[in-house]
Amino acid sequence: MDLKQFLNSLKGSPEEMETNLSVDCVIFTIQGDQLKVLLNKLFIESNWMLPGGFILTNENAEEAATRILYQRTGVENIYLEQFKVFSSPDRFSIESLFEDIEIIPEDMIDVEGLRKRIISVGFFALVNFDALTLTGGIFEEDIIWCDVKEIPKLAHDHAEIILQAVQALKKELYFKPIAYNLLPEKFTMPELQYLYEIILDKSIERSSFQKKVLKWDIYERLEERREGVAHKRPFLYRFDNYKYQDALKKGVKFGI
Amino acid sequence: MDLKQFLNSLKGSPEEMETNLSVDCVIFTIQGDQLKVLLNKLFIESNWMLPGGFILTNENAEEAATRILYQRTGVENIYLEQFKVFSSPDRFSIESLFEDIEIIPEDMIDVEGLRKRIISVGFFALVNFDALTLTGGIFEEDIIWCDVKEIPKLAHDHAEIILQAVQALKKELYFKPIAYNLLPEKFTMPELQYLYEIILDKSIERSSFQKKVLKWDIYERLEERREGVAHKRPFLYRFDNYKYQDALKKGVKFGI
Repeated sequence: MDLKQFLNSLKGSPEEMETNLSVDCVIFTIQGDQLKVLLNKLFIESNWMLPGGFILTNENAEEAATRILYQRTGVENIYLEQFKVFSSPDRFSIESLFEDIEIIPEDMIDVEGLRKRIISVGFFALVNFDALTLTGGIFEEDIIWCDVKEIPKLAHDHAEIILQAVQALKKELYFKPIAYNLLPEKFTMPELQYLYEIILDKSIERSSFQKKVLKWDIYERLEERREGVAHKRPFLYRFDNYKYQDALKKGVKFGI
Repeated sequence: MDLKQFLNSLKGSPEEMETNLSVDCVIFTIQGDQLKVLLNKLFIESNWMLPGGFILTNENAEEAATRILYQRTGVENIYLEQFKVFSSPDRFSIESLFEDIEIIPEDMIDVEGLRKRIISVGFFALVNFDALTLTGGIFEEDIIWCDVKEIPKLAHDHAEIILQAVQALKKELYFKPIAYNLLPEKFTMPELQYLYEIILDKSIERSSFQKKVLKWDIYERLEERREGVAHKRPFLYRFDNYKYQDALKKGVKFGI
């Protein structure tokens, strides 16, 4: 998509979308020992930004985020959670979309409707790295996974949105055992522990971790073991939603 | 305000406000042994609802909530926290504003702009009951404190907003020692414990509560004591922001 097409697309069809309301998705994954987020560009000269888009008039914010996630990752049933609204009157600017403001055509800057404030609902999502095939949406020219500790210059307030999403993810981990969404369906206890260590950014003592986690009684231990790990063949586990619902009823606390 | 004035007011001045974006405030207080929220009516024939209003084009959601809280309670510097966005396409309806739909004048139902979806940012606030003088906004005909366990029929999805606010308040109590905002400046440990018991809806063992809370080291113990309590004269405490900032740096956990 070239610049002119992009700017024209922003005029949108006001009757189909809420032109002052968007969602932005912080899609987390773990690759190696890094917590990463998905970034994309709208066109080749734009700054990196979070996948997002306008809320359509016939959908709620969750449906908008689900639609956009599917467009970008090709995956459905992603773990998705609303965490905060970003609404500063000056948060959105056409200028901050561009690496270099000089390239904006003079007659494009004042396109009617472009300068109004856009409020964005922030969502975070958790995906397993290996389950994904990244697919650009209709606008994307480029899409990358980026270490949360090495975020480049981003458009608008997207750096702040990522910062707040990381805080929200850590907080949520105290209440819900959501980290398994970052793993394949079957995983070992050391693999789960490794996730917590990366997200919480601290080391965790192995035996106390396993003791706590097994006490929750929400993972089914399979007969299979992880093969190919030197000297050890740890058991594989799988999240069990029935057990989880039971644990919720019992008031189990999921903090590590 | 009569009905016709109210309906006309909804047409608003689109250039001054985001007519599809509002905030709704769940203002909590404790009275006796009840957790209560503030409800108001827009006009005499309307259902009860949460204090709320449109976001103006020059303010963010937090500023809008702060403005509305000041209009309704006359108090500034209220503890205020955004907790969720409510965005279902059919959440807002003129019909649900009225106790009896028959009273809506025929020519008023289809006022242009009234039927569009309004997305609302939910905030909860904590106030000390005795510090308040309730003041209706320009629209209010009536305003009451209502036990969260005895909520009457409300407009729109406001019952759901209250339910989610109570959950958010309980969750926040695990991370931040915010309950003191519901108390006068000086309070005793038994008074603080009583708040936790009402909000968390469970009884708490006295000595373990005091041990945990004093370990946080965020309240200053004063020389004064609460007088007039039979047989006991418990010490008074006061929240100390310097100590709190220190505790945050040390990574103190505030869960009860």
